[in-house]
Amino acid sequence: MNQNPAARVGGSVRVVGAGLLGASIGLGLRARGVDVILADASRAGLHLAVDYGAGRIASEGDDPQLIVVAVPPDATASVVASELIAYPNATVTDVASVKVAPLAELEGPGSELSAADLARYVGSHPLAGRERGGAISARADLFIGRPWVVCPRPGLSRERVGLVEHLILDLEATPITLPADAHDAAVALVSHAPQVVASLMAKRLDGAPASALGLAGQGVRDVTRIASGDPELWVQILSANAPAVVEILRAFRDDLDEVLVALGDVSASGARRTIAQELADGNAGVAGLPGKHGQDRRFASVIVMVDDTPGELGRLFGELGEIGVNIEDLRLEHSPGAQVGLAEIAVLPEVKTRAMDDLSARGWRIAG
Amino acid sequence: MNQNPAARVGGSVRVVGAGLLGASIGLGLRARGVDVILADASRAGLHLAVDYGAGRIASEGDDPQLIVVAVPPDATASVVASELIAYPNATVTDVASVKVAPLAELEGPGSELSAADLARYVGSHPLAGRERGGAISARADLFIGRPWVVCPRPGLSRERVGLVEHLILDLEATPITLPADAHDAAVALVSHAPQVVASLMAKRLDGAPASALGLAGQGVRDVTRIASGDPELWVQILSANAPAVVEILRAFRDDLDEVLVALGDVSASGARRTIAQELADGNAGVAGLPGKHGQDRRFASVIVMVDDTPGELGRLFGELGEIGVNIEDLRLEHSPGAQVGLAEIAVLPEVKTRAMDDLSARGWRIAG
Repeated sequence: MNQNPAARVGGSVRVVGAGLLGASIGLGLRARGVDVILADASRAGLHLAVDYGAGRIASEGDDPQLIVVAVPPDATASVVASELIAYPNATVTDVASVKVAPLAELEGPGSELSAADLARYVGSHPLAGRERGGAISARADLFIGRPWVVCPRPGLSRERVGLVEHLILDLEATPITLPADAHDAAVALVSHAPQVVASLMAKRLDGAPASALGLAGQGVRDVTRIASGDPELWVQILSANAPAVVEILRAFRDDLDEVLVALGDVSASGARRTIAQELADGNAGVAGLPGKHGQDRRFASVIVMVDDTPGELGRLFGELGEIGVNIEDLRLEHSPGAQVGLAEIAVLPEVKTRAMDDLSARGWRIAG
Repeated sequence: MNQNPAARVGGSVRVVGAGLLGASIGLGLRARGVDVILADASRAGLHLAVDYGAGRIASEGDDPQLIVVAVPPDATASVVASELIAYPNATVTDVASVKVAPLAELEGPGSELSAADLARYVGSHPLAGRERGGAISARADLFIGRPWVVCPRPGLSRERVGLVEHLILDLEATPITLPADAHDAAVALVSHAPQVVASLMAKRLDGAPASALGLAGQGVRDVTRIASGDPELWVQILSANAPAVVEILRAFRDDLDEVLVALGDVSASGARRTIAQELADGNAGVAGLPGKHGQDRRFASVIVMVDDTPGELGRLFGELGEIGVNIEDLRLEHSPGAQVGLAEIAVLPEVKTRAMDDLSARGWRIAG
């Protein structure tokens, strides 16, 4: 953050909504020297974000080229509409995690917008966020390397779309163009339905005996981690994308019913084959997720035992650096009661043997 | 692995089944100098495990004190029975991930076992494993710090239970005593039901367009990670624990149906409240999972940006060691296309501010 490389977006940017996303956008643009005008329905929230350095309070005569609406999904369409009307030259985008519903509201019969107004609206959605919300969790680099979907309506001017792409590039995210309905179907699949599934599984843990929860390993923790998300926000997201989410969850429920029937009488003809097929289909689904750097590349893993004392992981990774092995990904595993952890390090397959040999030679205990 | 501390178990230990668990038990005991006798229905599998150093081939006159049956769940009861009969003085344990079904089979009317035989059987289950199976994935330290449940039948002699606990302690796992039915209910909740849920969610991803999968973030990856498990093994586990798994999945399905109804008409009275309540219950479930070291302790997190080059993570963790901050847990996040990662480091809450200040002073970019 020591440099302020020239920003691609020109002029002032107005950000409406100073929560996690709005404040993070403000911080990221300010780091490039952009004049950021902040607005928020909550005066306290606005002042917090200003204090954080995410932008300044609006003043008479502001003439933003670009307006970013970063309010909850339920409020998105009405705020986009009022901004389009209040600033008749500006391009307006939003960052809501659903795109069809706000667009339908803006285009609908009850809308006070003209065709000319709507020609200045470009919906978008950064795939970024945190389990904690609010300006207090904001960070300038929230979007770095993340996909940021742009959903231009047909016939939108190249310049207006380009302005939103400049914003995205200034925040070091990756612009991806998708029609609104394809976007909503995609996030229903990779975000909204998994959220429901994780929450319902996590609900089963609520009130379980401590002796049962004490046996929990990394598996159930991973399955339920995102269930700690904010219910109020998620109700809005799920409601706004209900048809796409329902389609996926219905198919999930039908599969679950098949598994329940099969488990209800495992000695019945075909029961075990049904279960095995569902599990094998799950194998295929996981294998299809793209890997790091957008490639479908498999890394090799090296598992090293690490004592639970300060500096041990540092020493390990320092030595990996010394032998020239890059850490592509890693997972640290700890069991209740253990004073030792396992660091599972993903490396390029071609360096795995060397990494294991060199670490062993330096006295590390290689566990796999 | 340089030392051979005296083992608690005395005499020879016979391990039947030279897969991941059996070979890992063999390696762990061999590291303590214990005489390990390996047996496996597959000659090739047996020789692979012997070559790995997990034990030796059985020979005439072997008189093991303890026998560990480490075969697939379906075969467990019959192998336990034949071992009890073949070695009339030995204590026999097994490591199957279900405990009621094998016990019922051993005690059932079709069993050839006498009460005296059964008095030598102590069921157990190490909560350890990997997504990859086979002796080739075995490691001496697979069990270190893991819970290992012992399910003694009422009236079992203290000495025989103690022998199994010695095995567990020699492998540096943590013995936990639970009745067989409580064990099965617990693993249904924290392992078997999450496995089904993860697999069915992962199945939805199979065949999805690349543009949708390209938006996948850490959330859906975590929810579906364990879906890469071996279907053949999991069919056996799920089938053997079907009633307990069905109970949890039925409750899950009922909740899912409620969510589907609510999402089917989000403007209906109470619909949003229903969804919000399910999500809030999920919050509570996740919050109840015990933290590291078996405590329900919350850590603070520090998020640091790390360039994707060799040695950078090493430098970070090395400097954390220098300033005396222990890393309690960590998550490395990477987005497709990014050349920079975010290391989310869990630290004790009381050192968070110092860690952030000291790292900033050393030039690290703190992202939260």
